[in-house]
Amino acid sequence: MSAPKKVVLAYSGGLDTSIILKWLQTQYGCEVVTFTADLGQGEELEPAREKAIMLGIKPENIHIVDVREEFVRDFVFPMFRANALYEGLYLLGTSIARPLISQHLVRIAHETGADAVSHGATGKGNDQVRFELSAYALDPSIRVIAPWREWDLSSRTKLLEFAEQNQIPIAKNKRNEAPFSVDANLLHTSSEGRVLENPADEAPDYVYQRTVSPEQAPDQAEMVEITFERGDAVAINGEAMSPAMILTKLNELGGKHGIGRLDLVENRFVGMKSRGIYETPGGTILLEAHRGIEQITLDSGAGHLKDSIMPRYAELIYNGFWFSPEREMLQALIDKSQEHVTGTVRVKLYKGHARTVARWSDHSLYSEAHVTFEEDAGAYDQKDAAGFIRLNALRLKLLATRNARFK
Amino acid sequence: MSAPKKVVLAYSGGLDTSIILKWLQTQYGCEVVTFTADLGQGEELEPAREKAIMLGIKPENIHIVDVREEFVRDFVFPMFRANALYEGLYLLGTSIARPLISQHLVRIAHETGADAVSHGATGKGNDQVRFELSAYALDPSIRVIAPWREWDLSSRTKLLEFAEQNQIPIAKNKRNEAPFSVDANLLHTSSEGRVLENPADEAPDYVYQRTVSPEQAPDQAEMVEITFERGDAVAINGEAMSPAMILTKLNELGGKHGIGRLDLVENRFVGMKSRGIYETPGGTILLEAHRGIEQITLDSGAGHLKDSIMPRYAELIYNGFWFSPEREMLQALIDKSQEHVTGTVRVKLYKGHARTVARWSDHSLYSEAHVTFEEDAGAYDQKDAAGFIRLNALRLKLLATRNARFK
Amino acid sequence: MSAPKKVVLAYSGGLDTSIILKWLQTQYGCEVVTFTADLGQGEELEPAREKAIMLGIKPENIHIVDVREEFVRDFVFPMFRANALYEGLYLLGTSIARPLISQHLVRIAHETGADAVSHGATGKGNDQVRFELSAYALDPSIRVIAPWREWDLSSRTKLLEFAEQNQIPIAKNKRNEAPFSVDANLLHTSSEGRVLENPADEAPDYVYQRTVSPEQAPDQAEMVEITFERGDAVAINGEAMSPAMILTKLNELGGKHGIGRLDLVENRFVGMKSRGIYETPGGTILLEAHRGIEQITLDSGAGHLKDSIMPRYAELIYNGFWFSPEREMLQALIDKSQEHVTGTVRVKLYKGHARTVARWSDHSLYSEAHVTFEEDAGAYDQKDAAGFIRLNALRLKLLATRNARFK
Amino acid sequence: MSAPKKVVLAYSGGLDTSIILKWLQTQYGCEVVTFTADLGQGEELEPAREKAIMLGIKPENIHIVDVREEFVRDFVFPMFRANALYEGLYLLGTSIARPLISQHLVRIAHETGADAVSHGATGKGNDQVRFELSAYALDPSIRVIAPWREWDLSSRTKLLEFAEQNQIPIAKNKRNEAPFSVDANLLHTSSEGRVLENPADEAPDYVYQRTVSPEQAPDQAEMVEITFERGDAVAINGEAMSPAMILTKLNELGGKHGIGRLDLVENRFVGMKSRGIYETPGGTILLEAHRGIEQITLDSGAGHLKDSIMPRYAELIYNGFWFSPEREMLQALIDKSQEHVTGTVRVKLYKGHARTVARWSDHSLYSEAHVTFEEDAGAYDQKDAAGFIRLNALRLKLLATRNARFK
Repeated sequence: MSAPKKVVLAYSGGLDTSIILKWLQTQYGCEVVTFTADLGQGEELEPAREKAIMLGIKPENIHIVDVREEFVRDFVFPMFRANALYEGLYLLGTSIARPLISQHLVRIAHETGADAVSHGATGKGNDQVRFELSAYALDPSIRVIAPWREWDLSSRTKLLEFAEQNQIPIAKNKRNEAPFSVDANLLHTSSEGRVLENPADEAPDYVYQRTVSPEQAPDQAEMVEITFERGDAVAINGEAMSPAMILTKLNELGGKHGIGRLDLVENRFVGMKSRGIYETPGGTILLEAHRGIEQITLDSGAGHLKDSIMPRYAELIYNGFWFSPEREMLQALIDKSQEHVTGTVRVKLYKGHARTVARWSDHSLYSEAHVTFEEDAGAYDQKDAAGFIRLNALRLKLLATRNARFK
Repeated sequence: MSAPKKVVLAYSGGLDTSIILKWLQTQYGCEVVTFTADLGQGEELEPAREKAIMLGIKPENIHIVDVREEFVRDFVFPMFRANALYEGLYLLGTSIARPLISQHLVRIAHETGADAVSHGATGKGNDQVRFELSAYALDPSIRVIAPWREWDLSSRTKLLEFAEQNQIPIAKNKRNEAPFSVDANLLHTSSEGRVLENPADEAPDYVYQRTVSPEQAPDQAEMVEITFERGDAVAINGEAMSPAMILTKLNELGGKHGIGRLDLVENRFVGMKSRGIYETPGGTILLEAHRGIEQITLDSGAGHLKDSIMPRYAELIYNGFWFSPEREMLQALIDKSQEHVTGTVRVKLYKGHARTVARWSDHSLYSEAHVTFEEDAGAYDQKDAAGFIRLNALRLKLLATRNARFK
Repeated sequence: MSAPKKVVLAYSGGLDTSIILKWLQTQYGCEVVTFTADLGQGEELEPAREKAIMLGIKPENIHIVDVREEFVRDFVFPMFRANALYEGLYLLGTSIARPLISQHLVRIAHETGADAVSHGATGKGNDQVRFELSAYALDPSIRVIAPWREWDLSSRTKLLEFAEQNQIPIAKNKRNEAPFSVDANLLHTSSEGRVLENPADEAPDYVYQRTVSPEQAPDQAEMVEITFERGDAVAINGEAMSPAMILTKLNELGGKHGIGRLDLVENRFVGMKSRGIYETPGGTILLEAHRGIEQITLDSGAGHLKDSIMPRYAELIYNGFWFSPEREMLQALIDKSQEHVTGTVRVKLYKGHARTVARWSDHSLYSEAHVTFEEDAGAYDQKDAAGFIRLNALRLKLLATRNARFK
Repeated sequence: MSAPKKVVLAYSGGLDTSIILKWLQTQYGCEVVTFTADLGQGEELEPAREKAIMLGIKPENIHIVDVREEFVRDFVFPMFRANALYEGLYLLGTSIARPLISQHLVRIAHETGADAVSHGATGKGNDQVRFELSAYALDPSIRVIAPWREWDLSSRTKLLEFAEQNQIPIAKNKRNEAPFSVDANLLHTSSEGRVLENPADEAPDYVYQRTVSPEQAPDQAEMVEITFERGDAVAINGEAMSPAMILTKLNELGGKHGIGRLDLVENRFVGMKSRGIYETPGGTILLEAHRGIEQITLDSGAGHLKDSIMPRYAELIYNGFWFSPEREMLQALIDKSQEHVTGTVRVKLYKGHARTVARWSDHSLYSEAHVTFEEDAGAYDQKDAAGFIRLNALRLKLLATRNARFK
């Protein structure tokens, strides 16, 4: 295969992607275009620009974009409509950011006439799959370069040598390997690797970066009221906010109360188990509240159908199939259910836990008239239950009669 | 239909089932056999015996049975192998006890030659369905009498009148209606009705009976280590225990730390929504720990399949279909997966929350050699991922190429 | 409950619904409005008008509507997009017509100010459920009268007596009971009951009314080409046709070639098994062709997802939940998949069997370049398969290694 | 990676696997052990022995095994219990044979001390995946050599040159490439490639090898009665037979009547679509009959659950995951359902079509007493249906009431 001519690189400004940038230039002699996204990871982006320029990138080839609103509106919120949890527990904070990044890489490739895109994910993880499946789904002729699978910089020492040889500045604290690896965006912070590799060892406290420990959280519980419209959060404590503002505010609240910590051993798509420490403060509150509002506004048939397809939906996102027809089909099903998921939920935040304590809605399906222990004024005829039970029992009776003949 | 001759009644010894007992005698002129079970509800059972005798039940017709071990071993533990949650949150504490009670009612009916069984569930709830489907599935010719759907004692006043006319003692605190209704067993306590009927109102603190509030829980976290064998908990902090002892111990721990409170609006099988306050202290810890041990001992294919059928399994139990072929088929699937779910999990208990922090097992599938950020000595060839991704992407590329032609 | 004032009756003009008409008048003293639909059942509808007038219905209360296009366009075709089969075999010909009839009953009730609707389905079958769930879903305050569950005309003799007493003309061939019961519409004819009640007895040949026996079908096979757009058939042998015309034409072809006969024992929603003889000539061809066009135009991820939810979708329709949120959610998912299901299929019709033999489409995803046994000019790199297999095998290897330790 | 020392090759005796045999010897200098299975493909196996000897294989290294009974008993029958169809139509005839072959390859490797196995599947197809996943699942340390992915014999010319250089005899009719590729075993014959590559072209008649064309089938229909015990066929027309005998007999009948032809475009696991012509004469009859017996012996809850998981089960087998925990879990579920699937089905065979016309069983759940149009002597109370419908409608009414407020 011939060398690529122009490559759009997902560039963080950090040491690793700076090495990749240089490696692309030297290995392929190609022009490099950088894409640096503000996904809410909480880092300044301007240093990435300066560093890119220092590494020889032309100013017009440097793309720095604030994608926070887009991220929450078009990726996080649709996913939360599904109450998606991977393997029962994981809120998919890394998974859901990858298709957005690929979408921008491909867009910039088209705008700049680049013939390839590149990312810094290793060959052992899920992110390579997510980046690449998304890129190929959006442009089947794009080329994806994954330096970690190609190069021979297989040890820390070799990487640092390469950096030195190529005048890439190395921050002092990067000389030694970090004790664990971090990914962060507006939805979550994940930590994995090295000191976390043994799942029998508790994660040291310094791993947690975004939430206080429940022990250090305030001794006073705090109530928060979240208002939804058609399945999406639109206001907090009565104040309307944009999607990214909602999540930012919930992160602040969740972080303060030590909410959303998860220590998980999960199954990677590439076939191995890995252990991750996740902090999803706002997302954890949001899931709890979304379930709370669905409890009164969603019909049981709709809710049970959603529940039954959720694991598959979550698996698709985890595995990198956001831009697949089956994810879009499931999204159509989910979105169809959310038309009346409108109302407000009160969630109590206290020492690591978020718990729905009240919810109300003009769209409520809850009928006190039907459920009441008091006289219900004819709303419900208890005798109907007899026929309901007898017909539900009919097949079980026929079965028991048959089976008894063969005992 | 002719009157039943002998009826086995699920009898708690309380006012309501005492009225039912008397009503059966007077309405049908039938002999009544009582069944009172120790399900771990935390009440003395001997008073039930005395009261039954006082109401004219022959001593040989009084059946008081401690079913705690049977309950946990044959019902609770199989259900927990599935990580069953109804509507994402409810641990099915009431649902899972009903089939056991019906099983004993039918057994005693056979042993005593009774032709009917009876229960005290109303015509609005799920329990009537659970009792009756179970009874019919176990004996298709049994007759079930549900007094609440038959009689005209439709108000508190009428009930008390009936009680007085029939010399049924009424405890002073039963003169007035309880502010809410309670069901309890070793797995959980549920509270519903009356003061809880408006889901927009927070549940008053006095509703909670089995757990301290998180605010009142100890300021010091506590670690508990739970050991599993083939999917079932067998030891706590290294001490082997029987199933019921395990759950009792976990309840004690969970109750102390304010764990397992749930405020839920759920969909009843009979078609309406209802609001319940659930306390499942031990079960909440057990679910967390079971997930923790599955994380390292269960293959992803097995785990994802389990996840995908779980909602249906939970719905079957909620709806009363424990004794149905489809529940048994799902159980066979689930049990098949648990052969190696053996090992120990450490869970941190603190102020309302139980969180896995470590897990280990001889049966672990976690391979540090494969996942490590360090040199993996050839355990995993990163280049394999390129082919893996390319073949997974192939259909997406063909799709994108096709779709592009029609834009 | 007070008597209804005005009732809209689903009226066929036959003896049974004429008796119902009269019974409603005499039992409730209410005004009766009739609705007679041309669903393609192949009967003249004007006699129904005359008979209604003779039974005292005011001309303005007689509603005769040709709903064939609506039936196929809004009910049959959406269902066929799903390849729906109940219990693996049944094309749901009766089930899919019921919600349409209820929709018209409710519409006419609103237009005429009627407070109830009525139908002639018995209390043992599925149709009562389908009629009533649909009616209640469209108007929760409507009242449904099901005479077969209410009256005491429980034998043929009593029905005929009632007819005679009320001057309802009885055709000679209706004096004796028909040997089986029939339902027909543009999609199918179903026969059940009486001579068909023993599933060990072959159905007599005279039961089949719409298809010749395969033995009597032409000795010459016939090819038919069906063109689809977005999942719906739009042309036959190159000739564009309306939905109802398409199905009419396919029925003609299928009937002539003895296609679409089914002898089935199925599970009714009300709990019992029943045996039906179905003839669905056009529908059988349509299903085969729809699958044929999906084979080349639908992505595997989309197709497998559709397959996995199909049984649930079919069950919902069979059970009468067409107008339910979960059916609509599944429809949204299915419809989303059909955007490119466009192209033509050639089906061979011969002696009871319809078989796809060729299919082509501008929207095809089939890539001869990729699949060819010849040189593929680099479209596919066989070495990619090695990595694909190794990563798919990884978890199986880890599992085998673990399991071996415990043998 | 070092060269393998001893390799067990799946050897048919044909030209392609003979070339592989020689290539393994020359490429790796390794000892080759051959495994030739009688899967019912209808070819003499002794010529394979002679040819192997001629190619220098030691007699003790030649393994020829009749696996027909094992194939049907342990692979085909368990799969048919599920009514498995891939993509709605394909009976998985090739897929189900591959794990058996791998099982023997691994067994022989263990018995002979071989360190690798090898197969003749190409890098484009599903079979490589099935062979290799099975092998790795049975022995995680086994090495699999797939010559088609390794060598440079990429054209027919090169292959023949290699054969000539290595004294491999080339039958005259193998000089030219076959017009299509064939795989056969007791369950089916599949044909694909070359003249079949364009799915818009009808398959020429000479492709079909195992079934007469329906036009050439007897003008007289034939009835066959198949008896099942616990889900498996055990007798034909009253005569008890072994599993392989059953399938052989059904193949004879089906072949004679032109039954089981399928022209399919399917989705391969490796990401592309391919077109295959399948002939599954006996299997097509068996599926029809198995469904027929399940209709009267399987409860609806069990049947619907089976139907809902079937697509996933079929996909697992198609994709090569027979030896996976999730396939085994699904098998446990399926097998659990078959306990009473016992009885006899009469199937009518005529001109390409097999159709159930009668079925009977001591284990039948069909209750004429319940379903009859005649007086049912109180077996079923039609009034029960009113309550059944009202409770099923309750949520739909609440929903309609709510939705009406927002129109």
